[in-house]
Amino acid sequence: MSHIEELTKPSDVKRVAIVGAGTIGSSWAAHFLGQGMEVQFWDPAPDCDTQVRSFVDNAWPALERLGLCPGASPDKLHYCPDIASALDGAQFVQESAPEVHALKVELYEKFDDALPENAIMATSSSGLLLSELQAGRRGASRYVLGHPFNPPHLIPLVEVLGGKDTARASVDWAIAFYNTHGKKAIRLNKEVPGHLVNRIQVALWREAIDALATGLASVEDIDAAIAYGPGLRWAVMGPHMIFNLAGGQGGMQNFLEHLVPPLERWWDTVGRSPLTDDIKRQLIDGCNKAAAGRSIDELAAQRDQMLLDLMEALNSSRASQAQP
Amino acid sequence: MSHIEELTKPSDVKRVAIVGAGTIGSSWAAHFLGQGMEVQFWDPAPDCDTQVRSFVDNAWPALERLGLCPGASPDKLHYCPDIASALDGAQFVQESAPEVHALKVELYEKFDDALPENAIMATSSSGLLLSELQAGRRGASRYVLGHPFNPPHLIPLVEVLGGKDTARASVDWAIAFYNTHGKKAIRLNKEVPGHLVNRIQVALWREAIDALATGLASVEDIDAAIAYGPGLRWAVMGPHMIFNLAGGQGGMQNFLEHLVPPLERWWDTVGRSPLTDDIKRQLIDGCNKAAAGRSIDELAAQRDQMLLDLMEALNSSRASQAQP
Repeated sequence: MSHIEELTKPSDVKRVAIVGAGTIGSSWAAHFLGQGMEVQFWDPAPDCDTQVRSFVDNAWPALERLGLCPGASPDKLHYCPDIASALDGAQFVQESAPEVHALKVELYEKFDDALPENAIMATSSSGLLLSELQAGRRGASRYVLGHPFNPPHLIPLVEVLGGKDTARASVDWAIAFYNTHGKKAIRLNKEVPGHLVNRIQVALWREAIDALATGLASVEDIDAAIAYGPGLRWAVMGPHMIFNLAGGQGGMQNFLEHLVPPLERWWDTVGRSPLTDDIKRQLIDGCNKAAAGRSIDELAAQRDQMLLDLMEALNSSRASQAQP
Repeated sequence: MSHIEELTKPSDVKRVAIVGAGTIGSSWAAHFLGQGMEVQFWDPAPDCDTQVRSFVDNAWPALERLGLCPGASPDKLHYCPDIASALDGAQFVQESAPEVHALKVELYEKFDDALPENAIMATSSSGLLLSELQAGRRGASRYVLGHPFNPPHLIPLVEVLGGKDTARASVDWAIAFYNTHGKKAIRLNKEVPGHLVNRIQVALWREAIDALATGLASVEDIDAAIAYGPGLRWAVMGPHMIFNLAGGQGGMQNFLEHLVPPLERWWDTVGRSPLTDDIKRQLIDGCNKAAAGRSIDELAAQRDQMLLDLMEALNSSRASQAQP
């Protein structure tokens, strides 16, 4: 399957292409410029050059605060009048065209000729299935999903996944590439609607809607409850590491043995989850792996230090925004 | 029902009692000390005086960073050898005894004589039903739920609820009291297992477990996905205001009309939610109310500013913790 072995080392990538430069594509462009790269972009909108430059100029102070890489400059942004010139010499392509199947298929047909033979192509698609989009394409083994969260130049997460025809090496490369260049990439092992995080967001939202429908709380109070409660902790560590700490010195194992059973009474009212022995084992092992040798006390101290830093930042941010 | 009309004005409260001073009670004590109050505490554990003082000393630098109120001092912490002396003169009582029904019932029987006639009593209970605990008690109309999130001296959220015998005025008072003294209180209108936020946490967790069970992603990647993705946004605004902004200039209405329908394909796979016309109206109205006159552009600018402040704080926190 062609040129996987000739891929540029992820840390050596100097030139990327942005195909489709609406809000998401523009934000990707800003991110890669901040990483010191040359960014070639194409979009069919007539005013896209102005739009993207304006987006990048607005985003630049934020990128400066988050830390620019050596050589980073908005002057490395290059508008290209067609796909072929945008992709020319690119070692990586981030495609963020509208979520329309036919439109992406048409685009990918053009990639057959235009995509450099040693480049990885990642699609930002949130709803379309990569396996369907890549089928029959010449570069299919180098097509991955690289799904960002809005706005990509601020939110680190990228969900990475290979379709049926993607080479495993392409997924590995994309994860390494994103992680080397300022993003936090996670690996998805299956192609499911909504990927991972949007499914989780919808599950949370469904319960929130239920609270609204049953008159439990108002929209405003539900939002406040999350933003001033678990949202803070989730921004610091994911839910499993938070539960791991809720288990005290016994960690996740203790949490599952002693804190989950008393919840069964109301767990039933939100639907039982498949907490099998195998899943419990995966949860415990996963938390131990994520702890990477840190004791519960060390983890708790880190959680509290980060919560404090985060609370202080949010308090001062809210206070400054309340000024006239 | 007795002495609701004689309650101290929430902003005038100077003396509170902490009954049950394990991890949660100690953290509550630290919080109220930081608010400049006299804190009288009782716990049956023999070494509780030492434990609580040690907790407060450890927490003090954090409270200093978050901002102490005038007169705040760890010297205002007073160990009391029994419930009666802990409650003596208190204008507010936070009860954080272990989650054992019989134990709390026994405690509340003692409150019949010991609770000052103009004091509100709030229980930190996460799993027991207030209506069952307050039944037949003399001060029942002044008993509320005030459920915190761990650790209470850092996490602002308190869920407030009245039981069957609670006076509406007591709930109003408790919400005003918490909000005046450094917490973010939300109002629950129904007594359901798990209150609001733990139900939402479990709904999110159930989907995370499903991802694990189906092999979609690892525990570590699920945690990273939330912490580096939606967790960041949820710490800034709740999910509805985030979706409100995802709807662009059309806000929640546009989100519901144009962005939710394409999700139906995978919404089905996580269970359909009751998005009736009435609920849609409540969601739109709720977002408009929370916006309080701010335009979508203003809200988006605030979101991005807060995200940036938060990202910067977390980056620097993580970097400092990575130092040897």
